[in-house]
Amino acid sequence: MIRIAPSILSADFASLGSEVAEAEVSGGDWIHVDVMDGHFVPNITLGPPIVKAVSLHTKLPLDVHLMIESPERYISDFAAAGASVITVHAEACVHLHRVVHQIKELGLKAGVAINPGTPASAVREVLEDVDMVLVMTVNPGFGGQAFIPNTLRKITQIREWANEVNPDLLIEVDGGVSEATAPLVVGAGADVLVAGNAVFGRSDRAAAILEIREAAEAALR
Amino acid sequence: MIRIAPSILSADFASLGSEVAEAEVSGGDWIHVDVMDGHFVPNITLGPPIVKAVSLHTKLPLDVHLMIESPERYISDFAAAGASVITVHAEACVHLHRVVHQIKELGLKAGVAINPGTPASAVREVLEDVDMVLVMTVNPGFGGQAFIPNTLRKITQIREWANEVNPDLLIEVDGGVSEATAPLVVGAGADVLVAGNAVFGRSDRAAAILEIREAAEAALR
Amino acid sequence: MIRIAPSILSADFASLGSEVAEAEVSGGDWIHVDVMDGHFVPNITLGPPIVKAVSLHTKLPLDVHLMIESPERYISDFAAAGASVITVHAEACVHLHRVVHQIKELGLKAGVAINPGTPASAVREVLEDVDMVLVMTVNPGFGGQAFIPNTLRKITQIREWANEVNPDLLIEVDGGVSEATAPLVVGAGADVLVAGNAVFGRSDRAAAILEIREAAEAALR
Amino acid sequence: MIRIAPSILSADFASLGSEVAEAEVSGGDWIHVDVMDGHFVPNITLGPPIVKAVSLHTKLPLDVHLMIESPERYISDFAAAGASVITVHAEACVHLHRVVHQIKELGLKAGVAINPGTPASAVREVLEDVDMVLVMTVNPGFGGQAFIPNTLRKITQIREWANEVNPDLLIEVDGGVSEATAPLVVGAGADVLVAGNAVFGRSDRAAAILEIREAAEAALR
Amino acid sequence: MIRIAPSILSADFASLGSEVAEAEVSGGDWIHVDVMDGHFVPNITLGPPIVKAVSLHTKLPLDVHLMIESPERYISDFAAAGASVITVHAEACVHLHRVVHQIKELGLKAGVAINPGTPASAVREVLEDVDMVLVMTVNPGFGGQAFIPNTLRKITQIREWANEVNPDLLIEVDGGVSEATAPLVVGAGADVLVAGNAVFGRSDRAAAILEIREAAEAALR
Amino acid sequence: MIRIAPSILSADFASLGSEVAEAEVSGGDWIHVDVMDGHFVPNITLGPPIVKAVSLHTKLPLDVHLMIESPERYISDFAAAGASVITVHAEACVHLHRVVHQIKELGLKAGVAINPGTPASAVREVLEDVDMVLVMTVNPGFGGQAFIPNTLRKITQIREWANEVNPDLLIEVDGGVSEATAPLVVGAGADVLVAGNAVFGRSDRAAAILEIREAAEAALR
Repeated sequence: MIRIAPSILSADFASLGSEVAEAEVSGGDWIHVDVMDGHFVPNITLGPPIVKAVSLHTKLPLDVHLMIESPERYISDFAAAGASVITVHAEACVHLHRVVHQIKELGLKAGVAINPGTPASAVREVLEDVDMVLVMTVNPGFGGQAFIPNTLRKITQIREWANEVNPDLLIEVDGGVSEATAPLVVGAGADVLVAGNAVFGRSDRAAAILEIREAAEAALR
Repeated sequence: MIRIAPSILSADFASLGSEVAEAEVSGGDWIHVDVMDGHFVPNITLGPPIVKAVSLHTKLPLDVHLMIESPERYISDFAAAGASVITVHAEACVHLHRVVHQIKELGLKAGVAINPGTPASAVREVLEDVDMVLVMTVNPGFGGQAFIPNTLRKITQIREWANEVNPDLLIEVDGGVSEATAPLVVGAGADVLVAGNAVFGRSDRAAAILEIREAAEAALR
Repeated sequence: MIRIAPSILSADFASLGSEVAEAEVSGGDWIHVDVMDGHFVPNITLGPPIVKAVSLHTKLPLDVHLMIESPERYISDFAAAGASVITVHAEACVHLHRVVHQIKELGLKAGVAINPGTPASAVREVLEDVDMVLVMTVNPGFGGQAFIPNTLRKITQIREWANEVNPDLLIEVDGGVSEATAPLVVGAGADVLVAGNAVFGRSDRAAAILEIREAAEAALR
Repeated sequence: MIRIAPSILSADFASLGSEVAEAEVSGGDWIHVDVMDGHFVPNITLGPPIVKAVSLHTKLPLDVHLMIESPERYISDFAAAGASVITVHAEACVHLHRVVHQIKELGLKAGVAINPGTPASAVREVLEDVDMVLVMTVNPGFGGQAFIPNTLRKITQIREWANEVNPDLLIEVDGGVSEATAPLVVGAGADVLVAGNAVFGRSDRAAAILEIREAAEAALR
Repeated sequence: MIRIAPSILSADFASLGSEVAEAEVSGGDWIHVDVMDGHFVPNITLGPPIVKAVSLHTKLPLDVHLMIESPERYISDFAAAGASVITVHAEACVHLHRVVHQIKELGLKAGVAINPGTPASAVREVLEDVDMVLVMTVNPGFGGQAFIPNTLRKITQIREWANEVNPDLLIEVDGGVSEATAPLVVGAGADVLVAGNAVFGRSDRAAAILEIREAAEAALR
Repeated sequence: MIRIAPSILSADFASLGSEVAEAEVSGGDWIHVDVMDGHFVPNITLGPPIVKAVSLHTKLPLDVHLMIESPERYISDFAAAGASVITVHAEACVHLHRVVHQIKELGLKAGVAINPGTPASAVREVLEDVDMVLVMTVNPGFGGQAFIPNTLRKITQIREWANEVNPDLLIEVDGGVSEATAPLVVGAGADVLVAGNAVFGRSDRAAAILEIREAAEAALR
């Protein structure tokens, strides 16, 4: 099953409530939330108070991607703000196994993300523990970048490992997802697709989501 | 002249555009924007993309308060996002004089902020260089805290120094400002009052702003 | 009233329970505990588990001196371990006022320490808030160093300020305290004397404490 | 040959001298010492002065596990304090090969540790250089946690590599070791077993050590 | 084709202009420049102003090896100073793929370096993106150290990967390169040899370069 | 007595040996060496190996100004490289008193520097301990900036304090020193003048030094 997660990084920040509500009625499955602290990545976006405000305008699961250093300090704040999934970066965690279980003990789904330059081995030891791996298909920090094809190799690798040890593992991709690239990532093994400009940059967001979904699902057949 | 700066930290983050527009029509002079990076203070709020979005909904000056480490890295981003005033923390700047001039060279007003526990001497050497000093009257990080009366002593001290070397210096206060505390800080020498809950926590925001303004101006007479 | 606080930094770490018990029967008023993290100071000593173990062997107040970075992270752990007084370094706290109140909200006495090179102005803005100021009379990190006479000037200054705004303020000194230096620091305004080698380096600890106490009290007359 | 290393993290910190002496007469092979700095792990335990004090009460090798950042700063201090083995974390060392040789040049055995979430590849390039690899079978920071079974895979992998390039390599495990788990880790290739609560939490420590040893050795046959 | 890159770390820093000019006429192919910031490695050497000065005295490509933290901050400065190749350490880059492309977008060749203790997998995901991998054959920080033979395994591994995905990839080695070790590294797959003492420590530098080159080229046949 | 210290930051880095030799014969009193690590200031210049090389070409005292973080790590390296004076920044030292004595214990003169935005109180507690205070009259990091007149106030303040407690204290100024500004800083109390462009930017360096010296000495009369 393919999930499409519109990313509010590309939404209008002046009216996030109506933006996420529209993403929901337009057929989005999750709302993807990009949290950046200006240290792990060279941009500052938003934090728990905004997640809380957004959560009141949608019933969709909030899929919170923490592009922050020492994320263990903010897990409980984002859980309290309404997150359903919290994803931390392997590059930001010295004690990755502990942080993953810190998320799960709060009753949330736990994800682990890796940058384009990071090898798949960085997540291998927690594959049994996480619910999701997020393979970044652009360098995190800004919206609107081009998909990096070499990352497909990692998706394939992680799906193979998961087939052995955690068949229910979700693989999410974030960056440059479009009607054109969706079949590639799904073909490699992804099943959660973050879409930023490809959704919020279009006036007809329902059509945008549908096109990506259909392209993705075609790759499954 | 007293300026009232409603702080969007207490606004509804789901509809920031209409919130700042309402603050403008309700008589606010500046829009105060609290930027927190989760490192300098224990909270993450918002960054340049949100400032940019907000700027499209008001003609008021955006008064951006950077509660972030190494703020020199983000001055140009906030300037590009529409800031009119950028305030950095003395505690966050090893090269405070340089950062102040970095802001001014972009054509903006420059401010320097100090925490409740920081002595006034921390800003003494840049008083001739800055346009504004922000005296925190609560510990930064969260809205809705109680005013710390001992900070009045610092406002008085800075106003005395400014009278000698920079009579046009603005002194801003942030934290626990209300109809009750406004006369105190204005009496001590402040002239820009940040108001969070005291404005956005009220249904009639015009009345809220007016009450604070009148209480403040009464202290001037 | 003079308080003598034997410092376990100079005790036998292989039998801390009996060491603190002996310090208690020998007439010590507080037990001083030197916590070092190897980052704020160039030594690692001990942390909460050892404070907890020590607390079971004495009824004296545990006076815990945190020579650690970002002490706000460990306040609750040391409180749970049995501390009665927690002292943080001004040099380690960007939000000094907040940390002081974090300690007090747990029902403990709060202290703030300054290094020999740090000016007294670093603690001026929290003098009304703290229960104690610790003036380091040696550079922290190791026991057995020589008293730095210039620090007397700061003790005098802080006592003068305290007489105006917080007459009950305790001033503690730590470093090189002995029968010879006790009258100097007490004469300048100190009333809590940490004694390391001067107590635990002597076989007759009761005599050692008595001698320091008598020398100190003589200076009060 | 199996070595049992009682960990003083679970001993009575108020009487470490007698605790380690008892561990020695009870049949322990090494004394395991957990050094935590409150930065690499979220706990502060003890440092060189306590290791020194402990060293005077036992003839057993002190097996010092540094859960600290930038351990290269403290190698010589721990060597001077009486360590026989010093183990650093791969996650804490940018120059792992250099630190390993810094330890060996002082005439000590050198170990390298990895957290549960860290892949075995992190130690592959120093396998010829080290005397020991420490596979953490819980997340470091606190005693009394449950054994993580997935770590067995890494023990097996490292033993295979070691058989090719360094047959004398010791593999130590730390975390949740008991009569029940000892056979598993030994079966996978471990030969040094750290035991905390399983030894010091028992009144008859000799029996505790013997039971673990017998369970471990049974797995060798 | 073998390239010999004399390293100015071993030159006379009092007359760098004539040193690099002599290296050029003596047959060097590149000038290797070791930049150390005292944080990533325990030494401080030189930065952009010195690279700029050196660039005026040679037409050879300047091969700048950044042993610094957060190298993304200085890429443009070194480019402006005249660098032809800029190499960053994988251990210093959370966003390795981004930094590599930051270098390439300035029109320079991009390299990525790994320390002796770092596995080859650390560079695997950027092999298609970089022009060069630098395998450190000593620990960086100081000149004049002995070659570490185990690093040959990584050279071999990277050359195998490169044969599949990027046949033009250059592999550089730095540390202990001499007439004796050159054949070994070239045999394993290296083609750019940094030589410090082996060139600048000799009075006849042309002879020194020639000997290394001939030894290296012999290994190619 | 006025001392003129030509700064090699403005010399030709390609021929530092002859540059310092010429500065010596041109009448310089000290050679000023600007060490920058790219962390304390946004530039990387040079470190111990270059100081060592320079020291072989002049008999003048090397006046080493450390614009680096945690300077205590490199004091012994710069002493070994030939420094006569080592100056650290107050903003970079949590344990300023200790670092000052670390320098003096090696038999060198110790200085402490402050940035333009830093108050004079930052050095007050070590005035009896240091040989020199360096008042930065531009923001450190780059050569060729304009003198900041407000810094004169700090020079005056420090000279007043020194007259009471350490009459032999030297006050050095660095930044924008010229024939025009030399009388101002000397009038305020400075006696060591760092000159960069004003010396090395001139073809007749002896004339440049003489002009500054005469302008400075005129202010003494």
